[in-house]
Amino acid sequence: MDLQGDELTDAVVASFDGSLEPRTKEVMSALVRHLHAFAREVHLTEDEYFLAIDFLTRTGQISNDKRQEFVLLADTLGLSMLTVGLGNPASAGATESTVFGPFFVEGSPEVEIGGDIANGAPGHPCLVSGRVLNLKGEPIEGARVETWEADEDGFYDVQKSDLQGPQNRAHLITDAEGNYAFWAVKPVAYPIPDDGPVGEMLHAGGRGPMRPAHIHFMVTAPGYHRLITHVFEKGDPYLGNDAVFGVKDSLIAEFTEHPDGHYSVNYDLVLAEESQ
Amino acid sequence: MDLQGDELTDAVVASFDGSLEPRTKEVMSALVRHLHAFAREVHLTEDEYFLAIDFLTRTGQISNDKRQEFVLLADTLGLSMLTVGLGNPASAGATESTVFGPFFVEGSPEVEIGGDIANGAPGHPCLVSGRVLNLKGEPIEGARVETWEADEDGFYDVQKSDLQGPQNRAHLITDAEGNYAFWAVKPVAYPIPDDGPVGEMLHAGGRGPMRPAHIHFMVTAPGYHRLITHVFEKGDPYLGNDAVFGVKDSLIAEFTEHPDGHYSVNYDLVLAEESQ
Repeated sequence: MDLQGDELTDAVVASFDGSLEPRTKEVMSALVRHLHAFAREVHLTEDEYFLAIDFLTRTGQISNDKRQEFVLLADTLGLSMLTVGLGNPASAGATESTVFGPFFVEGSPEVEIGGDIANGAPGHPCLVSGRVLNLKGEPIEGARVETWEADEDGFYDVQKSDLQGPQNRAHLITDAEGNYAFWAVKPVAYPIPDDGPVGEMLHAGGRGPMRPAHIHFMVTAPGYHRLITHVFEKGDPYLGNDAVFGVKDSLIAEFTEHPDGHYSVNYDLVLAEESQ
Repeated sequence: MDLQGDELTDAVVASFDGSLEPRTKEVMSALVRHLHAFAREVHLTEDEYFLAIDFLTRTGQISNDKRQEFVLLADTLGLSMLTVGLGNPASAGATESTVFGPFFVEGSPEVEIGGDIANGAPGHPCLVSGRVLNLKGEPIEGARVETWEADEDGFYDVQKSDLQGPQNRAHLITDAEGNYAFWAVKPVAYPIPDDGPVGEMLHAGGRGPMRPAHIHFMVTAPGYHRLITHVFEKGDPYLGNDAVFGVKDSLIAEFTEHPDGHYSVNYDLVLAEESQ
């Protein structure tokens, strides 16, 4: 008893000695040591402790099936991008990964190659196309390409209270040449939701909420590592200042404006074999 | 762009450079560094990341005005006790502090010295008494003594769905000799609520949920540091195994059983001057 200083930390770490799984013990031991080291380094006050309790509680309570504030928190603290990097070590030649974000939902509609997924969402029409390839540059037939993006107003469909069906959200299957293609809207830079606890943190931190324009992809194919990534728009003013630290140079592509006002972007998605 | 490894951490730290308050920058910088160091050390997987997101979300969502699961989480990770230690450096002779816990509520009824606060809660009657003193051993008149405890079934009043007014929860004001005294019930060891996310963590960690029998105190008096503490029962089998790491030897007192079946405990509460 009388646990003070490092003895307290040691006792909490030791309390996980009987963990049912070795990994639980490993993770919780490290979590306790780093959490305590943080509190000691900043000499955390009791007022700050209660402020953190309240912040975390509200972060959970504002989350629902359409909003995930803890993902936003992890995104804005760089933890999401760090985890992506740890879990997806670069395979030379494969498309790089970036953050998953809080706006993916299961059960998107399937569209034919060349179909329109905007479903009336505001924005300039944009033809998004490319191929799904392996590391040898060979096409992958039958890959599943999930895509989702915000509309011209900066909102994903699931953020809209009056939503009439999915907008800018679909999946399609590549053809024998590995092609994918769909019509959506040209993405724009938009603020992440900043009317909740994460917004308070960004404001207190003197940070902005903007993300550069991007389209989300999740690509899966048997025998290949799952790829979760974005394509960003070249020239976007927020590329160097992404609120969630998700930009990688290799993920930036040119969105070409055409005389009739529509845009197009072509971007190949390269998957690494699972054995890689 | 292309933030990888330490560069990512540096960029997230730097994003708080414009914080409105220097303390925000200090705390968030340390939080980001320790959070990233944790994730790197354990090589946090994406599955574990999503498990953590779900865990934290449910921890917020199960919390309400009668249950604070994030306080339980901080308690069971030793963070509460660590913060108490940082904020209340030992003053020689003053009563030591321990965790606040999640069951305090504002607005307890005031009782006269010697009054009964059990209000029908099950348990052996127990007379709790002592004096509030300064470091010179002089009585402090007019100190406010808040007290709360669980009943014989291990429940605080606020945990009961059919509560008829406060039970084992009150405040009183010390007399000219610094005396406080009230009738409550003898405390018993009890499990912290383990039907939520914290219970899942304790189970996975092979840990028990028990706390040794104790009575909570919060004592305030003008010119003195606020004291938040417990009195624990000598001989309790969980003194060496408190789920929230709150036990200190100096806070253990003898609960005496009397022939008529009631108990008594006498414990002086010593406050440090604010100038100390």
